[in-house]
Amino acid sequence: MRDRALRAIAECQHIATMSEEPGRITRRFLTPPMHAVHAHLRARMESLGMTVHVDAVGNLRGLWRSPASPAKRLILGSHIDTVPDAGAFDGVLGVALALEWVGLAQELALPLAIEVIAFSEEEGVRYAVPFLGSRAVAGVFDQAMLSYEDSDGIRMDDAIRAFGLDPSRIHEAALDENVLGFVEVHIEQGPVLEAENLQLAVVEGITGQTRLGLCFTGQANHAGTTPMHLRRDALAAAAEWITAVETTACNTAGLVATVGKIAIEPNAGNVIPGVVNVSLDLRHMSSRTRNHGVTELICDARTIARRRGIEFEWVKKMDERRVDMDKHLSQLLKSALQAAGFPLKTMPSGAGHDAMVMATRVPAAMLFLRSPGGISHHPAESVLVEDVEASLHVGREFLLQLANDID
Amino acid sequence: MRDRALRAIAECQHIATMSEEPGRITRRFLTPPMHAVHAHLRARMESLGMTVHVDAVGNLRGLWRSPASPAKRLILGSHIDTVPDAGAFDGVLGVALALEWVGLAQELALPLAIEVIAFSEEEGVRYAVPFLGSRAVAGVFDQAMLSYEDSDGIRMDDAIRAFGLDPSRIHEAALDENVLGFVEVHIEQGPVLEAENLQLAVVEGITGQTRLGLCFTGQANHAGTTPMHLRRDALAAAAEWITAVETTACNTAGLVATVGKIAIEPNAGNVIPGVVNVSLDLRHMSSRTRNHGVTELICDARTIARRRGIEFEWVKKMDERRVDMDKHLSQLLKSALQAAGFPLKTMPSGAGHDAMVMATRVPAAMLFLRSPGGISHHPAESVLVEDVEASLHVGREFLLQLANDID
Repeated sequence: MRDRALRAIAECQHIATMSEEPGRITRRFLTPPMHAVHAHLRARMESLGMTVHVDAVGNLRGLWRSPASPAKRLILGSHIDTVPDAGAFDGVLGVALALEWVGLAQELALPLAIEVIAFSEEEGVRYAVPFLGSRAVAGVFDQAMLSYEDSDGIRMDDAIRAFGLDPSRIHEAALDENVLGFVEVHIEQGPVLEAENLQLAVVEGITGQTRLGLCFTGQANHAGTTPMHLRRDALAAAAEWITAVETTACNTAGLVATVGKIAIEPNAGNVIPGVVNVSLDLRHMSSRTRNHGVTELICDARTIARRRGIEFEWVKKMDERRVDMDKHLSQLLKSALQAAGFPLKTMPSGAGHDAMVMATRVPAAMLFLRSPGGISHHPAESVLVEDVEASLHVGREFLLQLANDID
Repeated sequence: MRDRALRAIAECQHIATMSEEPGRITRRFLTPPMHAVHAHLRARMESLGMTVHVDAVGNLRGLWRSPASPAKRLILGSHIDTVPDAGAFDGVLGVALALEWVGLAQELALPLAIEVIAFSEEEGVRYAVPFLGSRAVAGVFDQAMLSYEDSDGIRMDDAIRAFGLDPSRIHEAALDENVLGFVEVHIEQGPVLEAENLQLAVVEGITGQTRLGLCFTGQANHAGTTPMHLRRDALAAAAEWITAVETTACNTAGLVATVGKIAIEPNAGNVIPGVVNVSLDLRHMSSRTRNHGVTELICDARTIARRRGIEFEWVKKMDERRVDMDKHLSQLLKSALQAAGFPLKTMPSGAGHDAMVMATRVPAAMLFLRSPGGISHHPAESVLVEDVEASLHVGREFLLQLANDID
């Protein structure tokens, strides 16, 4: 298992060298280095006796069937695209580990069929829309996206053709009925497991997410000639509200609320801010708690603005419901976690993953690995060998139980 | 007096048409429209029997002497440059009213000598350094500034030459010893007089001013995967401090404190802010109160940062002492205010003015006119006819008392 763990990490580090930018890991949807990744993974898959093809949206897909395999296959995988200046493990580790799971199934001579998918796109960087790979596989790829342009003005369908694929065949990427389910192994990308001194967790689901844009409009004025009691300072109002956001989130278990973006006018040191625009990102596993939080914070903003003689407006920019992982498949993962000797830990994912999209089509489950320092989307992103090894022990138990489950 | 007031306002509105930009009032240091302003004002001055010249820094200066004038002259004036997209009255009104005061002195046959100066530069727009005109008159013009370049790369000395002047003669603009003092009439550019339902105020002095740059450095992280208790949110820290700034200023009489500028990184809706830079502008007539405020707010920032595990740094960007107006000259203005039948009102100026620089060389005093809506540096800047008329009544009384004072 140690060797498998070290190999999976080495795979990630090797694939990290295939980048659009020298010295940085940047690999967007169907950019040239994706050919190198495909060539490398295809060779690995073929050495495992897998049948390999690339579907029309650029997902690399390898199928292995044991001599006495059932009709229904398990799907494993994650994405191989990255954000700009990324780390080596976000997504890619899930693909490298999927191949090790295939190796384990072969070693144990389990009567299984396993398809490994290296999704071509999850991060939403090139076309500002995420999950292109898993959308196609889940059969929910919107054809209208094919006319989207990247920052160089290249249409998505042209990018697909330039990669040697046929965009008119994307519908063929959709899964047939012979699927047991989808399991994704992914780094946590947050600090929770490390803070609790745990290595692994089974993901309960993806939290619901609401994003708002809020605008406070006061009166820009001279910082020297306007006494405090005659000000209508939009930033002072926003600051009071940002403090309220933090307080509300801290007082509500499981709620995360973030003001990540701020723009002020005129933004000059000697002028009282007249207009402040801020973002709110609010996530919770319970829609009721999330909606209650949104209502409360809008009410807070309105109260603060009214007391200060300031105008307040808001607009909803995103409102996504929670997505649950499959109960049965997750229960198999939890049993495997315990069978492998690890404490039972479940947690929500605050970020979206391919498993969220796959869940719309097939039973889906996810296993999180601890992220040292909670760091991700950064060159310092890492994993611990012992955590990768632990995930392989869980994978072994999971495959054993799954084979047993099918019998 | 009504006619004089209407004429002064009409003068401002006429000069407002002399602009670098069609449809907007923008008149920077020695730009082409300044020639038109000079031609117009020169004609006005000459019709009043004044001797006119333009000094080497571009100040238009007219001298009137009564038949039995004393050796020492009174200087009146203000600036004729503007900020971009300005109003019609900031500065220019002080020049237009100075000419009316000369007319009043002539009407009253007062034994006075009056020099009116239309300062070429006060706003600091073209060369990012203010008070070019009054610095030269006060004899504190730094020759090193002549090599400064504007945004088009034009050196100040070349701009002066292009206007037809000789930069090597700027020292000749400095005042001789035969000056009684300097009086500037200016719009308040703030909301205080309007809020108190007053028309005029005698300015006590220019407040001292401290500007700081402050930086809060936390940890940028994923807005979805980082629970509240594991965050080091630089914006939440800054927001708490901005609220403290407002509270401190509101609880300290006469103190104004402004956070006018904010820059955050990475400034994305789904990322916890890692770095926040903010400005602080703090002004008060008392250096002790101002310095105490600065110390207290830095201490607050440090406490907030430490509690949150966030780094905090600050740097002082400006620290200007208060400048007092001359006691005797201000007393004459106050007496004139009361003699003209207006309530005695004194106030500090939170903004810099030519009088602040002139005060380094000669006794200086200022009279503020109410700014409707507190609006200035904006096309909506205005004055009320009755306020301009009121200022002329005060001017009349002031000149009468001054003539009496000299006798």
